[in-house]
Amino acid sequence: MTTDLVAALDIGGTKIAGALVDERGTVHARQQVPTPPSAPGETVLAAVADVLSRLAEDGRWSRVGALGIGSAGPVDAVSGTVGPVNIPGWRDFPLVEGVRQVVGGLPVTLVGDGVAMVAAEHAAGAAVGRRNALGMVVSTGVGGGLVLDGRPLSGPTGNSGHIGHICVELSGDECPCGGRGCVETIASGPSIVRRALARGWQPGPEEETTAAAVARAAGRGDEVAVEAFDRAGRALGAAVAAAAALVEIEVAVIGGGVAQAGELLFAPLRASLDLYAGLSFTHGVQVLPTRIGSDAGLVGAAAACRAELLELP
Amino acid sequence: MTTDLVAALDIGGTKIAGALVDERGTVHARQQVPTPPSAPGETVLAAVADVLSRLAEDGRWSRVGALGIGSAGPVDAVSGTVGPVNIPGWRDFPLVEGVRQVVGGLPVTLVGDGVAMVAAEHAAGAAVGRRNALGMVVSTGVGGGLVLDGRPLSGPTGNSGHIGHICVELSGDECPCGGRGCVETIASGPSIVRRALARGWQPGPEEETTAAAVARAAGRGDEVAVEAFDRAGRALGAAVAAAAALVEIEVAVIGGGVAQAGELLFAPLRASLDLYAGLSFTHGVQVLPTRIGSDAGLVGAAAACRAELLELP
Repeated sequence: MTTDLVAALDIGGTKIAGALVDERGTVHARQQVPTPPSAPGETVLAAVADVLSRLAEDGRWSRVGALGIGSAGPVDAVSGTVGPVNIPGWRDFPLVEGVRQVVGGLPVTLVGDGVAMVAAEHAAGAAVGRRNALGMVVSTGVGGGLVLDGRPLSGPTGNSGHIGHICVELSGDECPCGGRGCVETIASGPSIVRRALARGWQPGPEEETTAAAVARAAGRGDEVAVEAFDRAGRALGAAVAAAAALVEIEVAVIGGGVAQAGELLFAPLRASLDLYAGLSFTHGVQVLPTRIGSDAGLVGAAAACRAELLELP
Repeated sequence: MTTDLVAALDIGGTKIAGALVDERGTVHARQQVPTPPSAPGETVLAAVADVLSRLAEDGRWSRVGALGIGSAGPVDAVSGTVGPVNIPGWRDFPLVEGVRQVVGGLPVTLVGDGVAMVAAEHAAGAAVGRRNALGMVVSTGVGGGLVLDGRPLSGPTGNSGHIGHICVELSGDECPCGGRGCVETIASGPSIVRRALARGWQPGPEEETTAAAVARAAGRGDEVAVEAFDRAGRALGAAVAAAAALVEIEVAVIGGGVAQAGELLFAPLRASLDLYAGLSFTHGVQVLPTRIGSDAGLVGAAAACRAELLELP
């Protein structure tokens, strides 16, 4: 029996998705359920098991040779546990063991969602063929992952690439991670909203208070809204420059809901990168939008499963 | 004939050193000349050739199987050229070719001095046996290098680990690299001096205006001097935390003249790391002083030559 498919799970605070992914990174038999908010850990695991059961009903399940999990972090790939900030029922939760009890003897690979994202872009998206790349997800938080020497970098615990939590302002705002002035405190969607609100922006009468609404205001020429995105782009550009100085990336692939603002975010990001990447070997890092988009978690969990990861525990 | 020795060169803006280094990282037959200040490139190369000629007079030269160069950066390990900021006669200078003409058919490895330093600490110093480590040299500048998955990371051009040029203050001082708010603009020796002078510190009548003099003043309780070191330690701690978030280092080894200030620098560095490393997997990074010291460039150039480097071009 050929085992040319990988079962993939993408687990986040909003949804739990699953699919069968082929060698080209194409997604088949996609399943999705909402993540039960604030539920006990076992209830969240039951939702994961539900997705897996539906996948197993597909005739192609017999061709599955491995299972890859990309999970909101932090994760611990050594112990197989996860503690996603937005899934409070899971703290040091034995996710790999729970999944194994559902799928039996399949080999299971766990990586953080940032590692999964960059693995997807490297396997089938904007970073195909690149030796050293950074992937960033700019959304409710700011996540990321690295490809080094042609391989996704897992890191000893599966958490490498947490670029949202490097400090770009020593005396900046406090971050939920415990740090200060993290990229995430400036560039995440909620941070952009907070900045705009603090400087007088208000959503329209039928608008929600989101970064998308701030982006629409910027599109109408609202200077406060434009400034909030400028500032986010500046922080992201400095972060990309930092990654370039540390590990010589050649391309940064940017995804996530906030990146859908397009040039409103990408233009200041590129200008900032130009400013902060002052060394000969950090100049010229390319900035590209994601090509995989919202399936990156699934494609990446599968890719991480197939790839010879750097430093998988 | 056994070739159990490596010839090593350590090239900086102040001195050019050479030695024969054995498999244990022990330095033999050490030679050193001052770097000719502001001389044309060929004159600087002649000084390198002089060091090599003196080494070749040693009876053990016949046991040399390879040559490793650690050079002030940036370097370009692909083209074999270097352009050290403090050696103005060398810009895109073909150092590897020049050295080859002196030593004949020996294989030559070129890495940046930060890569060499961490390779030395990993081979024979404070990071022996560590899988993921950061080395930092806090001196006239702030340099660094990474060990990932047990191997020194060269990077595509030999420049990985430039932690002195990651931004920790978006609106910080301009850096000679072209960026702003780089770690080096706060934590290098000259930056510490500049900070102290700006806030009223003055060297004693027989003292030079150096970070060592600021450190002595701090030892006498001078609050301005203490603050300048606090600030440097804070920037260094945030930088170590950033490296931990990006590539999951487990230990940071700190060397260079400024680090000789000891706890005056290390205490605020550790406190800062504790603050900025807020994620579960970034907590607990160890901070250790160099164990190799001033021969790290030589030991590291030899180690880089022997190691299976990650991503050597």
